[in-house]
Amino acid sequence: MDKILRVNMSDGSVKVEEVPEKYQLLGGRALTSSIVCDEVVPTCHPLGPYNKLVLAPGMVTGTSAPSSGRLSVGGKSPLTGGIKEANAGGIPGQKLARLGYKAVIIEGQPERGKLFLLKISTGGAELVPADDLAGKGMYEINKTLWERYGEGTGIIGIGPAGEMMMRNAGISCNDPENGPGRYAGRGGLGAVMGSKGLKAIVVDDTGAAGVPVANKELFDQGRKKLAKALTTHDVTSKTLPSYGTAALINVMNEAGGLPTRNFSSGRFEGADKISGETIAEVTTSRGGKMGHPCHPGCIIKCSNIINKADGSYHVAPLEYESDWALGANCGIDNLDDIAELNRLCNDIGLDTIEAGCTLAVAMEAGLAEFGDSKKAIELLKEVGKGSPLGRILGNGTAFTAAAFGVTRCPTVKEQAMPAYEPRAVKGIGVTYATSTMGADHTSGYTIAPEILNVGGDVDPADPNKAELARAFQATTMFIDSAGYCLFIAFAILDIAEGFEGMVESVNGVLGTNWTTDDVTKLGLTWLKKERLFNEAAGLTAQDDRMPEFMKYESLPPHDTKWDVDDRVLDAVHSYTVEE
Amino acid sequence: MDKILRVNMSDGSVKVEEVPEKYQLLGGRALTSSIVCDEVVPTCHPLGPYNKLVLAPGMVTGTSAPSSGRLSVGGKSPLTGGIKEANAGGIPGQKLARLGYKAVIIEGQPERGKLFLLKISTGGAELVPADDLAGKGMYEINKTLWERYGEGTGIIGIGPAGEMMMRNAGISCNDPENGPGRYAGRGGLGAVMGSKGLKAIVVDDTGAAGVPVANKELFDQGRKKLAKALTTHDVTSKTLPSYGTAALINVMNEAGGLPTRNFSSGRFEGADKISGETIAEVTTSRGGKMGHPCHPGCIIKCSNIINKADGSYHVAPLEYESDWALGANCGIDNLDDIAELNRLCNDIGLDTIEAGCTLAVAMEAGLAEFGDSKKAIELLKEVGKGSPLGRILGNGTAFTAAAFGVTRCPTVKEQAMPAYEPRAVKGIGVTYATSTMGADHTSGYTIAPEILNVGGDVDPADPNKAELARAFQATTMFIDSAGYCLFIAFAILDIAEGFEGMVESVNGVLGTNWTTDDVTKLGLTWLKKERLFNEAAGLTAQDDRMPEFMKYESLPPHDTKWDVDDRVLDAVHSYTVEE
Repeated sequence: MDKILRVNMSDGSVKVEEVPEKYQLLGGRALTSSIVCDEVVPTCHPLGPYNKLVLAPGMVTGTSAPSSGRLSVGGKSPLTGGIKEANAGGIPGQKLARLGYKAVIIEGQPERGKLFLLKISTGGAELVPADDLAGKGMYEINKTLWERYGEGTGIIGIGPAGEMMMRNAGISCNDPENGPGRYAGRGGLGAVMGSKGLKAIVVDDTGAAGVPVANKELFDQGRKKLAKALTTHDVTSKTLPSYGTAALINVMNEAGGLPTRNFSSGRFEGADKISGETIAEVTTSRGGKMGHPCHPGCIIKCSNIINKADGSYHVAPLEYESDWALGANCGIDNLDDIAELNRLCNDIGLDTIEAGCTLAVAMEAGLAEFGDSKKAIELLKEVGKGSPLGRILGNGTAFTAAAFGVTRCPTVKEQAMPAYEPRAVKGIGVTYATSTMGADHTSGYTIAPEILNVGGDVDPADPNKAELARAFQATTMFIDSAGYCLFIAFAILDIAEGFEGMVESVNGVLGTNWTTDDVTKLGLTWLKKERLFNEAAGLTAQDDRMPEFMKYESLPPHDTKWDVDDRVLDAVHSYTVEE
Repeated sequence: MDKILRVNMSDGSVKVEEVPEKYQLLGGRALTSSIVCDEVVPTCHPLGPYNKLVLAPGMVTGTSAPSSGRLSVGGKSPLTGGIKEANAGGIPGQKLARLGYKAVIIEGQPERGKLFLLKISTGGAELVPADDLAGKGMYEINKTLWERYGEGTGIIGIGPAGEMMMRNAGISCNDPENGPGRYAGRGGLGAVMGSKGLKAIVVDDTGAAGVPVANKELFDQGRKKLAKALTTHDVTSKTLPSYGTAALINVMNEAGGLPTRNFSSGRFEGADKISGETIAEVTTSRGGKMGHPCHPGCIIKCSNIINKADGSYHVAPLEYESDWALGANCGIDNLDDIAELNRLCNDIGLDTIEAGCTLAVAMEAGLAEFGDSKKAIELLKEVGKGSPLGRILGNGTAFTAAAFGVTRCPTVKEQAMPAYEPRAVKGIGVTYATSTMGADHTSGYTIAPEILNVGGDVDPADPNKAELARAFQATTMFIDSAGYCLFIAFAILDIAEGFEGMVESVNGVLGTNWTTDDVTKLGLTWLKKERLFNEAAGLTAQDDRMPEFMKYESLPPHDTKWDVDDRVLDAVHSYTVEE
């Protein structure tokens, strides 16, 4: 990966640049965030001409390292007002990497209303007018572009939500088999892509040279150690491939930490009907698939392909977060309707977590009864239409809460909380509050030691989790930069050799000599950059806070409140970066 | 004024408290802001149980001091996220003062959906269920309550917008003759009142003792000096009573600083049709009234009563800001339609500046053509209905811009800009950017020296206006606290004896020995409190910035951009408060 592609949407120019020295050892999130910090004015309007959209495969993405197909997407978030990185699986990341692109930078803005497609292949890159694709959903986009450019081509794209510059618009990456559904979903980066007039990026790596590996021996040693850990650890070798991520539904429900009906309870009476076990059973009985990899080379294979009752394809994947957000959090226990809601999100181009939390707030506002899945489907369709109601819902949870005067609004930095109740599990709440990204479980998944006894055994009720949250956020930053799927963490937290292997595989590709200790150090260094961007954008300690209602409303069944001291939150980012 | 009324909406209690010593020399804005700073957690949800709504007449309100009938309303703003004070004329302020209330504090929150009315008279204060008033517009509310409690009673209330907790909901005070229309409009305090379940406050001062005056001789000397200045200065004795505030339309248009069609030009070809001169001519020919005082004792009488073509009452008042916001800024030059839009704002309970800027952004988004006044009326009616579109528009300019992805959004701290283009008149832009209140001309009206040659003669294009903006913001803070109408500033800026008289009148009431020098000192001291609240709420220097589009879009006709250095903005509040 020896080049950067710079696409200027104002003048239509497409340039290949050398990778500056300062970026040569970066990838994924570390690279997108560094470029955003270097090139984007923190106070710019996220949808104006001075924001940029940056895409970068991880350091080892495109190699044979296991479960390493992530593509990071970065920019200033129209949702949080701060820096944003969202990463996705699927196939485009690997293809970009194999074509030698360390990053793609989209900048400027065309005349309003113009729409383009960016085609990238061994023949180079070019912008193609794409007005014919305007308003199309991601399923049709993927189908059309596969017909036009070949089945299996990498497709990065936005649905109508992105074109309408909605704050909950995500960026879709496609699956090897099932089209759209792998989303760099969070934080409204789809709206940034929409504001650039870019409907899709087609990535064809036919004939590509692949990713150069500096030290093949070390790389092979590392990837094998990591693969062994992944195929050994119970979570990555048994639970995830068998039941998918939704295996967590029963676990979190049991812990009283499954947010239900807009975060008004931690337990859902319909949990069993939407659990991973039930999904596995139903999916298998209908000829669907469990243990599906979202990209070639994934050996965890946590994903699934969901069929309708008649055996025809419905949606892929149905993950824990989507299942919860569109299910329990809306009081919905009908799996088929949850799958349909998920499919609509994929098609319109929405993050499912934000969409589910939005629907729950809308239910709280009286737009539907909790549990009314048919009405929820109608509401979500409004987003695709861009009706006034759709404009509200498409702009996310905090926006919808403001529109209807709802104060029970489970967001941090305006981004909706994922499927873990912070009043029940304090550490994940500390991550929600202090992440540079807004409420985000993938920023520092302390659920592992707090609930799953992975990487330790920590009391979820203990409110002093500054060090825990910091350590997880730093490690996550490294994994997001390497291009590994975050799920490798389950294995490497418990199996030291796997952790070493992960670092060795990165060293093998980059020619570095990083140690396992460097993982945290580098993670903190890169995190600090993101924090500085956010500070320059106007975010303060007051943005690292939980919503007020969690401090005065008790959460059933354990009747717990958010009681973490603000000083704990402020301590998370009180550290010095070693130069 | 020797008591504070504390109304707790959670338990329905109404208590009269003594005025703590620290508040005894405060009034109006200095008092509402001090109470908000002392009692409201800066990070609280503005619509949650921990925000408070504070009402306070000015220091001399209720006395015979000329043009001193202002009532300040304060709280944390749901629009800006910072502290808010908005003040209004009309009659309730004087009545509250004469009843001896230095402040009324509304706190807590009743069960959702419950609505109350607060009745205040010499017999005491009581909360009365008011579910029968739910959803009613302010015209009907005023009529109903005058029928129930007597014509001429003071009515402070919210329309449907406040009940729906919209961010552009204002608080109406009534006029002696014409019911609602005197608005503490800015910053969404009507939504705070709505969140408290308080539909209206009825103030009956029959038999009240009046405002005690510590030094009657000094007071009389001061008010006479001030009155002389007001009846001498051209602006307060001729321009305002003859042509009303809309006399500024032609002036600002001539200067190229009349924001037109959503701040895309500084000159409106239809200005003459909506000018103060035209309003005066039409109003007089239809049997309406110019030179109308908004409360007894006003000797400026800048207001008007606007009739329809058939001679029947239409709306009062039609002020410059409303005329501009609902007119030029929407490309509308039809006075009758502007009057109708204004009447709708009064009835629904909306700030006209915010409403006009919202409609202009909606036009930019394609919801109507610029200039289509009939469609604008339809759009505004949606707000009253609370339809999804109405929920968007009722939440203001920045909200509407976000809903539709419009980047030409003329707001600071999410509050819409008033009728002076900052690219054409830099000083007012410095005030917009740095005011504790969000974009607000009344926070520091540098237009006086920059355009009107009042209080000096300053080049509007000069970008170095930190001292000017600071001095105006400080003086304004004092005037807002005294309870004087800001329009006395025109006279006292030019006539030193009038300025002295203003201070003497305050000293006469309070028994203080403040000098004219103390005006700025005290103003800065009180401003600092507001700044500290905003900082604690999470606002930073980055919130003291102009919208990005003004830096890259040139404003016709003079093709000027916003070129004020950020360091100038930061310098405005770089001062030390003397203890």
